[in-house]
Amino acid sequence: MKIKVFTIFPEMLRPMLSESILGRAIDAGYLEVELIDIRPYADNKHKNTDDYPFGGGAGMVMLAQPIVDAFADNTPPDFHGKRIYMSPRGRRLNQKIVEELSGYDELMILCGHYEGVDQRALDTCIDEELSIGDYVLTGGELAALVVIDAVSRLIPGVLGSDESAGDESFTTGLLEYPQYTRPRDFRGMEAPEVLLSGHHANILKWQREQALKITLQNRPDLLETAPLTKKDREYLALLQVEKEENEAIEK
Amino acid sequence: MKIKVFTIFPEMLRPMLSESILGRAIDAGYLEVELIDIRPYADNKHKNTDDYPFGGGAGMVMLAQPIVDAFADNTPPDFHGKRIYMSPRGRRLNQKIVEELSGYDELMILCGHYEGVDQRALDTCIDEELSIGDYVLTGGELAALVVIDAVSRLIPGVLGSDESAGDESFTTGLLEYPQYTRPRDFRGMEAPEVLLSGHHANILKWQREQALKITLQNRPDLLETAPLTKKDREYLALLQVEKEENEAIEK
Repeated sequence: MKIKVFTIFPEMLRPMLSESILGRAIDAGYLEVELIDIRPYADNKHKNTDDYPFGGGAGMVMLAQPIVDAFADNTPPDFHGKRIYMSPRGRRLNQKIVEELSGYDELMILCGHYEGVDQRALDTCIDEELSIGDYVLTGGELAALVVIDAVSRLIPGVLGSDESAGDESFTTGLLEYPQYTRPRDFRGMEAPEVLLSGHHANILKWQREQALKITLQNRPDLLETAPLTKKDREYLALLQVEKEENEAIEK
Repeated sequence: MKIKVFTIFPEMLRPMLSESILGRAIDAGYLEVELIDIRPYADNKHKNTDDYPFGGGAGMVMLAQPIVDAFADNTPPDFHGKRIYMSPRGRRLNQKIVEELSGYDELMILCGHYEGVDQRALDTCIDEELSIGDYVLTGGELAALVVIDAVSRLIPGVLGSDESAGDESFTTGLLEYPQYTRPRDFRGMEAPEVLLSGHHANILKWQREQALKITLQNRPDLLETAPLTKKDREYLALLQVEKEENEAIEK
């Protein structure tokens, strides 16, 4: 997979691409990330990449010309990947969209800054606007890194066996159950006994129930779409009864 | 404001803190970010920070001991900030939570890795789990940077007049209207005439209507909580009629 990132701050992104799992994936050739500096494409004397917005208002707007020319110069004739603009206005990223993106051979990601990008550059170069969440960042670079990181870990080979897992949050439709590791007794706090029992079925039951409990508590909206068994529903009903009893006692 | 980040990859974070708006905010003293390497706190011979999960399953779990000791060593006696763990399991970050966090004098952020963190470390050190979105990352470092970036831009003085704006997405409850800057005619694509009219009331009306249109199209859920005027509701009703007419024609 190849990802091209169009930015006015390539130096901000470079170090993140050489560290940790992402850096290792790039070194091993599972993923190629090219940083394209928009500024040299500016055809004005001072290599400006922004100007005041038409209609007034605070902030600066990124010029269409350097962006459109940077994309034209870096789009191969046979390109059939996806061109994304990171923006709070876009479709909100989730694990399903990450999976969808991981199916492309090539992605191009435009990072905006200031008050945004001249709409005509977006109309010309962008297939889709994507948002990583309902908050505002100083620029699109961190958002682009989030997309690259989330997508890269789905590329076969990128995650070692130490990191891989199918049980993690969202892939099961639920939030993840709590984890424990050695020692069994950490300063008086015991790990749950069931996890040390060696009884596989009981462990799975405990993990599933904990995942249901945490999801009900923190993100009940996920339960509306998560695939649930009859047993799951019975356990959730039990939790609901317990909760109501506790609330009654508190009163 | 002071932010302490607890991580096993401090080198991954450092460069992002010296670039762009965030780097400038730190240089100017608006914000202090301290990176605390968890690894030296490990009391085992090989300075391991993870181990196999109790109960089996893929992946590794971060040990409680180095984390608990790193927090203990870096928490001042008069600490009354907030201690956050970045996790897909947490409350989902939005601009309202960002505003809430920007009110603290001090934040501590724990970055997880692999299959997560021993629950006893979270029970001991963490006030709140926060998620930046419904997707899985290779670690918590990028998520921590997202929180730092979003929070820092709300600290008075961090954003220059070129970047500041109250009109951006989410602060008005709506997504942002499209932006245009020079030239008026970019390769045959004209900027909307109203923006060049100099007629302030018409410009505001156009911007508001565009924001309503984009929000209705991309994130209709936001309209349920956005503060809307009677005029806004009339315009949305008009868009709805237009949409239904277009759908009828398509059939």
